[in-house]
Amino acid sequence: MEIFKRSSDMREWSDQMHRVGETISFVPTMGYLHEGHLSLIEKGKNISSSLVVSIFVNPTQFGENEDLNAYPTNIERDIELIKKKGANALFLPDKKEIYPENYQTYISLEYLPNHLCGISRPIHFRGVATIVAKLFNIVRPDAAIFGAKDFQQLQVIRQLNRDLNFGINIVGSPIVRESDGLAMSSRNAYLTSEQRQSALSLSQSLLKAKEMVESGERYANIIKSNIRNFIDSFPYTQIDYISICDPDTLNELIEIDREFLFALAVQVGKARLIDNMLIKPIS
Amino acid sequence: MEIFKRSSDMREWSDQMHRVGETISFVPTMGYLHEGHLSLIEKGKNISSSLVVSIFVNPTQFGENEDLNAYPTNIERDIELIKKKGANALFLPDKKEIYPENYQTYISLEYLPNHLCGISRPIHFRGVATIVAKLFNIVRPDAAIFGAKDFQQLQVIRQLNRDLNFGINIVGSPIVRESDGLAMSSRNAYLTSEQRQSALSLSQSLLKAKEMVESGERYANIIKSNIRNFIDSFPYTQIDYISICDPDTLNELIEIDREFLFALAVQVGKARLIDNMLIKPIS
Repeated sequence: MEIFKRSSDMREWSDQMHRVGETISFVPTMGYLHEGHLSLIEKGKNISSSLVVSIFVNPTQFGENEDLNAYPTNIERDIELIKKKGANALFLPDKKEIYPENYQTYISLEYLPNHLCGISRPIHFRGVATIVAKLFNIVRPDAAIFGAKDFQQLQVIRQLNRDLNFGINIVGSPIVRESDGLAMSSRNAYLTSEQRQSALSLSQSLLKAKEMVESGERYANIIKSNIRNFIDSFPYTQIDYISICDPDTLNELIEIDREFLFALAVQVGKARLIDNMLIKPIS
Repeated sequence: MEIFKRSSDMREWSDQMHRVGETISFVPTMGYLHEGHLSLIEKGKNISSSLVVSIFVNPTQFGENEDLNAYPTNIERDIELIKKKGANALFLPDKKEIYPENYQTYISLEYLPNHLCGISRPIHFRGVATIVAKLFNIVRPDAAIFGAKDFQQLQVIRQLNRDLNFGINIVGSPIVRESDGLAMSSRNAYLTSEQRQSALSLSQSLLKAKEMVESGERYANIIKSNIRNFIDSFPYTQIDYISICDPDTLNELIEIDREFLFALAVQVGKARLIDNMLIKPIS
């Protein structure tokens, strides 16, 4: 596996691959890989003839009071895992390579970020759109794979890809969970064992919401307040949002009359956790 | 010459050109071509083995009270001129092809637009950066050629290219002038014959400023106020700005101690005209 630290070297490799007729799948990550990332890598391997993974903890998507400096890292282990999964190249730039002196260009979306995580993380999706556009231009993939746990991110990237004409096949991949239901996340590393129990309230909420809809509940507010009480009954939890929204626009629904996204964000100790599920009412 | 109205067709053509080893120069325009545009096209022909021109009057770079709806157009003549110059393809999309329903992604630069034209045209460079990034992704050029008359635009695009890792060779091309000195512009079509005389105050200002610097003047304010009086002496003129600034950052200079950009924007009747010159003090 090739490891590139410079954008120009990464780009040259990709151009060469394309010249000899290869196709490229791309899995961008912030490292500290878990089974969720590995499932993206596997999916990428199946879609294209070659695979590029990147590791870069992108500072522009973290707010001032967020966990940029605490974000967990284990580069040696990550490299081993990526190599073992059969990636052809790893792009591993440092901050100066990505944001050199006098850097000043940012990509913003007008509507999609005004929902869910974008409300409490106002610059987050600007940072995400910007780094993803940069990585797309450096790696030049034919397909890029993103996890559905970050559902809003996936929608933002689909919109970015459409709006700026990248022409990349954006592939969403299902949430990977621990055996007890907790969605895999690098931030789970922040949890103490007691907090880990409280973190289960997120995935359990999804199932509760699904049950309520399946038993005929159609008022979003009733489901939300029910889930709110449920999560509040766990120690260490602080709800950021509970949302029942249209999967495409992310606009909140009042009445459930079609497939919707149930999504939530809960601070559990030091970890801000998110989870979501698409739910279809049986009519 | 091929004419493409759809992004996907344009892109496919470019991809095919690259597959057979061709390089692509790109000249984006808003149409109503004059000798300035044609000089960009000629330069493009010399740089790469094939040439793409685009015509698209980009609505997102016009402010609400600007001349979007009055912008002059003559597509048939433009097509003939482009064909005659030996372009290989013309990209001629309509508004819906470029900004489809639910379009919401914009590219902004933090510093360069806070100067010169960006002050009186606050959304202009956001629109420019966005359309140029889109066109870059659709046409996939190896080189793109822009006129130096829009000096700030040229710097914005160089920065965009660097910051978002497009890897395109951005080529600036000198201002082309009428025999009496007026910089070529599609907006010159707005001028009455009397206003056309007043419009000469712009290019004459450049020469005046150059003379003052060459005779030893080093205070930017003295030069600016001199030029201001000069332009005010012409009927139909309304000065937007007169700037003496660093060519890279566009920050205003107080004292002239190195090469600088002398740039100005003047409303003459219905035409907002700009002009500029790099001037080096002889030390």
